[in-house]
Amino acid sequence: MSPWSPDLHERAANTIRALAIDATNAARSGHPGAPMGLADLATILWGEVMRFDPEDPEWLARDRFVLSNGHASMLLYAALHLTGHRVSLEDLKRFRQLHSPTAGHPEFGQCPGVETTTGPLGQGFANAVGMALGCRLHQARMRDADGPLIDPRVFVIAGDGCLMEGVTYEAASLAGHLQLGALNVFFDDNGITIDGRVDLSFSEDVAARFQACRWQVLRADGHDPDSIRHAIASLDPERPTLIQTRTHIGYGSPNRQDTAKAHGEPMGDEEGAAAKEALGWDHPPFHVPEDVREAFRAAGRRGTEAHRAWSEQLARRLEANPALAERYRAHHRAPDGWTDAELASMVAQVGSNKDATRGLSGRALNAIASVDPRLVGGSADLTGSNKSSIADSSIVRGGEFEGRNIHFGIREHAMGAVVNGLSLFGGFVPFGATFLVFSDYMRPPIRLSALMQNRSLTVFTHDSIGLGEDGPTHQPVEHLWSLRLIPGLSVWRPADGLECAMAWAYATREGPNAPHAMVFTRQKVAPIARPEGFDPRTVWQGGYVVRPGTEAVLVATGSEVELALGAAEALEADGISLRVVSMPCLERFFAQPEPVQNEVLGGLPIATVEAGRTDPWAILTGPTGLRLGVDRFGESAPYQDLYTHFGLTVEAIGKEVKSWLQRG
Amino acid sequence: MSPWSPDLHERAANTIRALAIDATNAARSGHPGAPMGLADLATILWGEVMRFDPEDPEWLARDRFVLSNGHASMLLYAALHLTGHRVSLEDLKRFRQLHSPTAGHPEFGQCPGVETTTGPLGQGFANAVGMALGCRLHQARMRDADGPLIDPRVFVIAGDGCLMEGVTYEAASLAGHLQLGALNVFFDDNGITIDGRVDLSFSEDVAARFQACRWQVLRADGHDPDSIRHAIASLDPERPTLIQTRTHIGYGSPNRQDTAKAHGEPMGDEEGAAAKEALGWDHPPFHVPEDVREAFRAAGRRGTEAHRAWSEQLARRLEANPALAERYRAHHRAPDGWTDAELASMVAQVGSNKDATRGLSGRALNAIASVDPRLVGGSADLTGSNKSSIADSSIVRGGEFEGRNIHFGIREHAMGAVVNGLSLFGGFVPFGATFLVFSDYMRPPIRLSALMQNRSLTVFTHDSIGLGEDGPTHQPVEHLWSLRLIPGLSVWRPADGLECAMAWAYATREGPNAPHAMVFTRQKVAPIARPEGFDPRTVWQGGYVVRPGTEAVLVATGSEVELALGAAEALEADGISLRVVSMPCLERFFAQPEPVQNEVLGGLPIATVEAGRTDPWAILTGPTGLRLGVDRFGESAPYQDLYTHFGLTVEAIGKEVKSWLQRG
Repeated sequence: MSPWSPDLHERAANTIRALAIDATNAARSGHPGAPMGLADLATILWGEVMRFDPEDPEWLARDRFVLSNGHASMLLYAALHLTGHRVSLEDLKRFRQLHSPTAGHPEFGQCPGVETTTGPLGQGFANAVGMALGCRLHQARMRDADGPLIDPRVFVIAGDGCLMEGVTYEAASLAGHLQLGALNVFFDDNGITIDGRVDLSFSEDVAARFQACRWQVLRADGHDPDSIRHAIASLDPERPTLIQTRTHIGYGSPNRQDTAKAHGEPMGDEEGAAAKEALGWDHPPFHVPEDVREAFRAAGRRGTEAHRAWSEQLARRLEANPALAERYRAHHRAPDGWTDAELASMVAQVGSNKDATRGLSGRALNAIASVDPRLVGGSADLTGSNKSSIADSSIVRGGEFEGRNIHFGIREHAMGAVVNGLSLFGGFVPFGATFLVFSDYMRPPIRLSALMQNRSLTVFTHDSIGLGEDGPTHQPVEHLWSLRLIPGLSVWRPADGLECAMAWAYATREGPNAPHAMVFTRQKVAPIARPEGFDPRTVWQGGYVVRPGTEAVLVATGSEVELALGAAEALEADGISLRVVSMPCLERFFAQPEPVQNEVLGGLPIATVEAGRTDPWAILTGPTGLRLGVDRFGESAPYQDLYTHFGLTVEAIGKEVKSWLQRG
Repeated sequence: MSPWSPDLHERAANTIRALAIDATNAARSGHPGAPMGLADLATILWGEVMRFDPEDPEWLARDRFVLSNGHASMLLYAALHLTGHRVSLEDLKRFRQLHSPTAGHPEFGQCPGVETTTGPLGQGFANAVGMALGCRLHQARMRDADGPLIDPRVFVIAGDGCLMEGVTYEAASLAGHLQLGALNVFFDDNGITIDGRVDLSFSEDVAARFQACRWQVLRADGHDPDSIRHAIASLDPERPTLIQTRTHIGYGSPNRQDTAKAHGEPMGDEEGAAAKEALGWDHPPFHVPEDVREAFRAAGRRGTEAHRAWSEQLARRLEANPALAERYRAHHRAPDGWTDAELASMVAQVGSNKDATRGLSGRALNAIASVDPRLVGGSADLTGSNKSSIADSSIVRGGEFEGRNIHFGIREHAMGAVVNGLSLFGGFVPFGATFLVFSDYMRPPIRLSALMQNRSLTVFTHDSIGLGEDGPTHQPVEHLWSLRLIPGLSVWRPADGLECAMAWAYATREGPNAPHAMVFTRQKVAPIARPEGFDPRTVWQGGYVVRPGTEAVLVATGSEVELALGAAEALEADGISLRVVSMPCLERFFAQPEPVQNEVLGGLPIATVEAGRTDPWAILTGPTGLRLGVDRFGESAPYQDLYTHFGLTVEAIGKEVKSWLQRG
């Protein structure tokens, strides 16, 4: 970690700048300005400071690097290439082209070394808070007399845009509250946003704001290597740090430096050449000087060597400490699928009482938590309402990270992004909880978890007009379907204890390494009567018959399954044989082979009932089929009154189904 | 505004406390704690400070009161009742019951005197920033030698929950930047959240944070009337102010004061009685002492008198100043519908060039702005990309409020809520602009505008994979439909210049006083060829035939209409007669009488094409119909490559339609 010579540093930073100019010019699109402004910082971080192993970018003890201003992606791709990650010069030449790992914004899972998908501003910053929290949770659990098994740091670069986003404030406030010392954020303070000078819309004292949130704040000149090094040497490991780093966007460009024009469009041939001349860069496009490459590679090799040494030491420490070894494995070895016995035990623990599904969810969560230490999480200040507490475990606080219960505060947006960061960190299956209606506050991180396919769980209670008196501001109507529309997210709406248990079992282990949203009622629902020997795994089919019938199918979810069953029973008296299908997870159902789907739906006319928007159910019913639900905003009243008001009672449903069948 | 006697004040505050206890007890649900803690403050605000007219709660020059912690609704209902608004004691007794104006959370439009719907935390705070901005915009436009025509103040009560939400930070940062002096926020600093003590999750220095955002910060003891009065007397009219007001949640309750238990559940008979005893309140439920009522009513009468005097003065000032009078009327008289000539002129101004619909939107926005001074707005730092600038108008800055272009900064969430506040303030038709994918950052305020039915416009550009290289983080897929699912929101996706012009004409004037979201492309699209004499109002039908055909219908929106037309033309060569329907607004189309819908769709088999999620289109196509679109996340590449990759070309669409028709 000895500093590079000034000459080597300058040429290394200019290599990054030139690559950013060349790649954006080749793509005729992209953002050269930020990489040019941040090249000095990146050179020091990747060349001198961070610990990483290009041979294994997933090494657990590595430092994490998050480019929260994801549009500066060429900075990251250049660094990954230069340090010897599996990002080739050819990949840089195919920046922003179809199937290239070098997408417009860094994509987790598409490019080795990219820690998280960034681009939507503020998300990376908040992911990094989750990673820094993951670090502390890990250290509190897995340590011996020599200290924690890992001690990574999290380095972030964030721009003005990230800092203006509310999610960043929320995450910063939480990071300060928990004193997450692993977190170090470089604020790319270049004074420019897309619209022009940042003071068009932003004139606060950033340093004072972060200090108010209990952060250490340092300042650095982003073009003075020693100033950057000095700041890094001053990082307080006991609290998060913001390094306000003054840079020039488009550094070196004679006509665009310090202008918004440097931000989002390629320099073009002419200005690119002028910039290179100003930087003293006289090389063909995509040139990397041999000694620059060698210096960056050396940093990578040091990391590979550190990884090897760490692994050896780890093996020794685990061997010497069987309890620690077991804990380590429980967190880091992907568990096998559930055995029948495990499932039966869970289902039994959750029980089959008439209860709110949120309560049954709480039991399922605890049943799983007792066998899977990876599960950690909490609520955005609705712990009791969400039934999201893990019993027999303490609350996570600054300096006390042994617990599993995280109080995210009234910060739904940051909660989603912190959960993503925790999941990406490794070793944990994290969840966040709030009311379903507030899923709107956290759609951006939910979407990103679906895009990244990382296991971020969400518990959404109070899932319909069934929440009652709090009224339409708190009653979700459109949310079930608007979540179902997010590709790659599975949405579960269980109808009773058994379905709750199986939804949790799916989300935590059986289902793909992907986000799962679980949706629960406030009000009590009756358990579904099931035949002797019912295989609980049937629930994982996503939709299955809960009452046989031959004339038509009524598909229902969650709390409406009980109503559908009641309606079917009432219709039986009229000689109508109505099949009822419980469909806790549409994504799962549509993933079934056609014969399975056909067996469930039976080629019969289909009606649906769910206390939410009905139009998309046309995917089952067709345009003129019967779809019962709630297509306008709710009302404030006791929930029984609302179910009556909106025509969702056993009687009203029976009547509607009957007249629909009579219409033919 | 002379202070009330200590005795009167105390009994008045206790009246509010007792009403809160009684109403939540009667409802067996609700939040007594905050109203009990805030009763002293509310007594002073409504009794001594604020200017309002109970006879006309919409009086333009009134002070605005926003209860951002909307769960404290009984505080507001009590104040409205006591001051003589049309909220009866009977209404208080029916707190949280079906069809009562006293909903669980305050609902704009349902209860006289409620300025905005609150409940989802942070929204009210940010609405108030919009109102305070509306105040300054109004004052800059409508003033004479005696000063502005109105000089209202905006008073807000916000709790810890509001302050933790990111939207509040964003809005506070913007309010500080613009130095919105009309804004005064009382922070109900009671140290308690739902989960328990606020320091479970929150430990920052709130005062320092707001000072960093350029606010005045004052402190008050929320149970010392003189301390509250002193703070109010110290309000700086030149910058926003936060009054950190120390209160006791559940003030007076022997066993629940200062606990989370006081927050969200009724006191019940026993503790309610104990609290009343502690407060020295010896009255039957829902009792209002006559002198307390009279004192509050007197405040209302002063407001009514002030309103009368203001109206007389206004009439004189407008008569003396015809230019001012014209401006006032242009802002405050609901305009007539569009004439044919106006529409023709607008359509001509927008033109029929091949262009990106975002560019055509920019022209439509400017055509309307030139005839309607109410239109103000801007972008969340994507002004150039969104084409959202109003030409020949300046930028709104602190101290300079004459302009119409608002730079919201990179604060999409606050933008949505500030636009709502501007709309609620009166005299303006505000819009906010960003990329469609970032509609996810602002769903909560969009939802609230739909619930309130206020005219908040949103401009969403870069509406599909057509945005190209920025990749999946920036490419909306699920957003069109997830917006369409919000009840009461109309979503427009125009296909060419004429449709852009008509969408804007609908959103600003023709359509209901409700939110309208307009969605535009980044990439160029060709204009639709239309028959001579085409009536542009046909577009307002929401869906209409753009190419006749007899065998099947292909429904398309936005940029895919051009592709659908191309496919139909290609199929003609194969002897297939494909009708093409452009459907810029589904909400409008489904609002048409059945014969109109049938005429457009013609009883033919229906296929759809739209570059987004396809499932909900089953509402037209049925489960097995052909739905072309994008059902997974996008990719980073030039947009032409993406349209090819996702099978959305004239050729691919033609082929799919042909094979679908052959399958029968």
